[in-house]
Amino acid sequence: MADKIYRVNMNDFSFKIEDVPSDWMGLGGRGLTSTIVAAEVDPECHPLGPNNKMVFAPGLLSGTSAANSGRSSLGAKSPLTGGIKESNVGGTIAGIMAKLGVKALIIEGIPEDDSTFYHIHVSRDSVKIVAVPELVGKNNYFVLDAMEEKYNKKVAVMTIGRPGEMKMLVSNISVRDPKGKLRSHGRGGLGAVMGSKKIKCITVDAESYKEVTYADASKFKASSKIFTKALQENPISGEGLPAFGTNVLVNIINEAGGLPSRNFRDGSSENAEAICGETMAENITERGGSTTHGCHAGCVIQCSQTYNDKDGNYLTSGFEYEMIWAFGAGLGIKDLDQIAKIDALMDDLGVDAIELGVTLGLAVDAGIIEYGDGIKAFDLINEDISNGTPLGRVLGSGAGNLGKLYGLVRVPVVKNQSIPAYEPRAIKGQGITYVTTPMGADHTAGYAVATNILNSGGHIDPLKKEGQVELSRNLQIASAAIDSTGMCIFVAFPALDDPVCLPALVDMLNARFGIALSIDDVMELGKKILKTERAFNIKAGLTSADDRIPEFMKYEKLPPHNAVWDFTNEEIDEFWNF
Amino acid sequence: MADKIYRVNMNDFSFKIEDVPSDWMGLGGRGLTSTIVAAEVDPECHPLGPNNKMVFAPGLLSGTSAANSGRSSLGAKSPLTGGIKESNVGGTIAGIMAKLGVKALIIEGIPEDDSTFYHIHVSRDSVKIVAVPELVGKNNYFVLDAMEEKYNKKVAVMTIGRPGEMKMLVSNISVRDPKGKLRSHGRGGLGAVMGSKKIKCITVDAESYKEVTYADASKFKASSKIFTKALQENPISGEGLPAFGTNVLVNIINEAGGLPSRNFRDGSSENAEAICGETMAENITERGGSTTHGCHAGCVIQCSQTYNDKDGNYLTSGFEYEMIWAFGAGLGIKDLDQIAKIDALMDDLGVDAIELGVTLGLAVDAGIIEYGDGIKAFDLINEDISNGTPLGRVLGSGAGNLGKLYGLVRVPVVKNQSIPAYEPRAIKGQGITYVTTPMGADHTAGYAVATNILNSGGHIDPLKKEGQVELSRNLQIASAAIDSTGMCIFVAFPALDDPVCLPALVDMLNARFGIALSIDDVMELGKKILKTERAFNIKAGLTSADDRIPEFMKYEKLPPHNAVWDFTNEEIDEFWNF
Repeated sequence: MADKIYRVNMNDFSFKIEDVPSDWMGLGGRGLTSTIVAAEVDPECHPLGPNNKMVFAPGLLSGTSAANSGRSSLGAKSPLTGGIKESNVGGTIAGIMAKLGVKALIIEGIPEDDSTFYHIHVSRDSVKIVAVPELVGKNNYFVLDAMEEKYNKKVAVMTIGRPGEMKMLVSNISVRDPKGKLRSHGRGGLGAVMGSKKIKCITVDAESYKEVTYADASKFKASSKIFTKALQENPISGEGLPAFGTNVLVNIINEAGGLPSRNFRDGSSENAEAICGETMAENITERGGSTTHGCHAGCVIQCSQTYNDKDGNYLTSGFEYEMIWAFGAGLGIKDLDQIAKIDALMDDLGVDAIELGVTLGLAVDAGIIEYGDGIKAFDLINEDISNGTPLGRVLGSGAGNLGKLYGLVRVPVVKNQSIPAYEPRAIKGQGITYVTTPMGADHTAGYAVATNILNSGGHIDPLKKEGQVELSRNLQIASAAIDSTGMCIFVAFPALDDPVCLPALVDMLNARFGIALSIDDVMELGKKILKTERAFNIKAGLTSADDRIPEFMKYEKLPPHNAVWDFTNEEIDEFWNF
Repeated sequence: MADKIYRVNMNDFSFKIEDVPSDWMGLGGRGLTSTIVAAEVDPECHPLGPNNKMVFAPGLLSGTSAANSGRSSLGAKSPLTGGIKESNVGGTIAGIMAKLGVKALIIEGIPEDDSTFYHIHVSRDSVKIVAVPELVGKNNYFVLDAMEEKYNKKVAVMTIGRPGEMKMLVSNISVRDPKGKLRSHGRGGLGAVMGSKKIKCITVDAESYKEVTYADASKFKASSKIFTKALQENPISGEGLPAFGTNVLVNIINEAGGLPSRNFRDGSSENAEAICGETMAENITERGGSTTHGCHAGCVIQCSQTYNDKDGNYLTSGFEYEMIWAFGAGLGIKDLDQIAKIDALMDDLGVDAIELGVTLGLAVDAGIIEYGDGIKAFDLINEDISNGTPLGRVLGSGAGNLGKLYGLVRVPVVKNQSIPAYEPRAIKGQGITYVTTPMGADHTAGYAVATNILNSGGHIDPLKKEGQVELSRNLQIASAAIDSTGMCIFVAFPALDDPVCLPALVDMLNARFGIALSIDDVMELGKKILKTERAFNIKAGLTSADDRIPEFMKYEKLPPHNAVWDFTNEEIDEFWNF
């Protein structure tokens, strides 16, 4: 049976199941969400008003047996950046939607009566929308338990916590992973969009799903084998990430002088040893827990983990580099266990680790907290953000808005979104990605760290300007394409270095759909996605003046390299010449 | 002696006195401030960072004997709108600067040590910059008293209160008026820019000033007489404003269904009778006080007043329509005396009446206050804003930012600046001014109320779209020119209706400087100013997408006329075709 578009209207609680327009047939994931948002959402609309839409779409290879194909995309106009946003997540949602034949789930409108929240349940050929007053004010694990009780384990769940209900810009949408833990549709404040539509949770029923079909099953199997082998043999995706998780990066980035510390005042942190992946792996080995955990079925990298406390009791999982950096180096908390407690709390609330971590690092400049005070950080989240006190609203609005409220100048945001865990002055290719991607400061949009620091795809000196714009452009084009396949972004490592990897990925697409794409075709798709997103942003009012690093990074030297951001506007704007 | 540019650098506490470049010779007021800001300020700079500048300039006719010529301009990049700002004020500053030969005072840089605040004293050929730790944390009247004690009554004073020190976006710069009361460089959060430069107050010494010279004194006198007569014979500037002050507008605008009430939910207010100019005039007559008060020497309109409480004790002055509307209709406070108390408090703190009033009206939607609660409003300002509590920071950041923090959609701002006291859905010409002026929502930039409601310069139906774009364009061009002369904007009323008024104004310019401008030349100047400002904004990242009314006004009908905002984007963008 052909895939369908499921369209839900929250204004009148109706739904429609539509054929997929031919233009959208060859699209999935980010390619599809960005195309639909650009086609259907007024770029000038208020992101929390009735004219914004949420578009969920599994990747093109989601639901197949391909390794690492379990990523799903969510598109909308972002209330944080004011531009288009695609947010990518693991969990069980991509596979279940794909097998159910849901090409995309589009949610429109806002209920007139905003006194309660709703639960949307998607099953084959049907959508149910019911008020769930009993879930209002509850957090994510409560919702997961309620859904597990109501259905069974094979239900994909997407939910928002209290910050999302309150439409805070740090709020994520949380997604159940195969082990019942949570992953996040992070960045861009998309939890607030779900909150604005008064949707507490969305479930997708796995009962009636069917395995996806293949135009050429044996070709698919053969290509899949090559692809998996490439993933497993690459030193990063096959060794570093499985052994230490993403947190393997703390020592590497710290060594490079690119680990933003104390609100981007230093490129290295005295806390690195205490919070690094090696320390974390030691703790896990000593205390029980697991160094490997896949965020979605079929993952062969398993970069996530289960992290226990000193007594061997479960503390958190999905304990990633970005979280540990933001709280450990940015905010200066030296105690990894305390950071883990905060991580678990933020998972339950559905709060973005990067946005809130950077905000709290900046909050030191506002006199709200002191560096290293993990207890206070926990309390601010648990009491102020969770309850929406005025201070909680301030912190829950992200670093850009905190900066406006407190008259701060050293505000590390691009397009009002917080800069992630790689210092743009010291890892300049990554900086080019931050300023040019239509997503606002985002490390996954074009992970130049790969070539600047990890020597994937060659090496470009991170401290020099030469070659960075071209590097970021190539990576962003490739990433936009990969984000459309449902593949985890870490496939970029073998794709950059192993000549058989990318052809195998393209062969899988061809074997799945009976088409004949070339690698060039896939790269053209990436270009088209970026241009679609950029065009939306321009109509929304963003310009080249938004493709800029925070001004202080141009005149303030970053230790230890005393690096400054030295790109001219013209050099940056060259990015879009393709 | 020729006028000079006084340039102060707060980074190294140096100053320079420069000749006026020939390009700037014919400019004053807004024309000069916008030209200098556009020439010297990087449009992409952080408005509170070291690269923003403040430019103070009296009007071309300031210091002369011309009626109503005592207005001064301040230009900078606004931290509220992110675009260029010119803010116009009465008080004694324009005349004293003009007579001292200060064509413009430019303040650059930021002190490296930000532990204290400074006082800048400008006298002929000299600038002194001294730390004033004893004034830190003090409010405006305290500073006025301190300056009066230090100097004498003939010192112009500009000062910021605690909100300005804290760089709040609702903060104004307050200016001493001839009677020792305060006027404001309002809108755009320019008090925060002064705070960012660590300047507590600026004084300009009147001791050594000289009367301005005239190229043709007798021609000036003759033209001045005609001009004054036109002002005095016009029914608005000669009768309505002197009798009832600007607050004469409450009944008129309420009657027209254009008085934004309860956060722009209604075009009329049940409080109109209680807060209107007629009631105010009655109170003043009964209680003592004065219905007339000029904000600057030489004013023949005298639209300001002194307002006493029931016991005849002084409450406030400069008690304007915008303030009374914002708190009386927007926030629904029925007690005029309570609004007067709030007005006095805000004068002392240096807080913008429109920005904070609209913010408090919106704060009802955020659950922070209830309509009509004047006691709570006073306390929020007196305790939270004044002390910079988290809630004070929220309210002190203006309506646009409050909306972002609380996920609100009905947020009445354009370019992040609050919409003033005339409903754009019901007075559409005024709406066109709000969306198109480079200043952010601003009623003075092109006061279409004149022709939509007051029948000055003919009549254009306020509820229809026809003719509004052209009306607003003509008014904005004229206003930009008038704002360059040092004239009060109310000269627009006779200028629109009395054929001798505008020629007399131009003749005064010619007689003062020995030049031969035509009315067309003056209008060309207005056009040039607008285009200069618009070009700055475009470089700063603003686009046509920022020339838009808040989206809710497009789909929500405003009683009593059930009016919506129905301009297409193309119709609005037509504004800039000149």
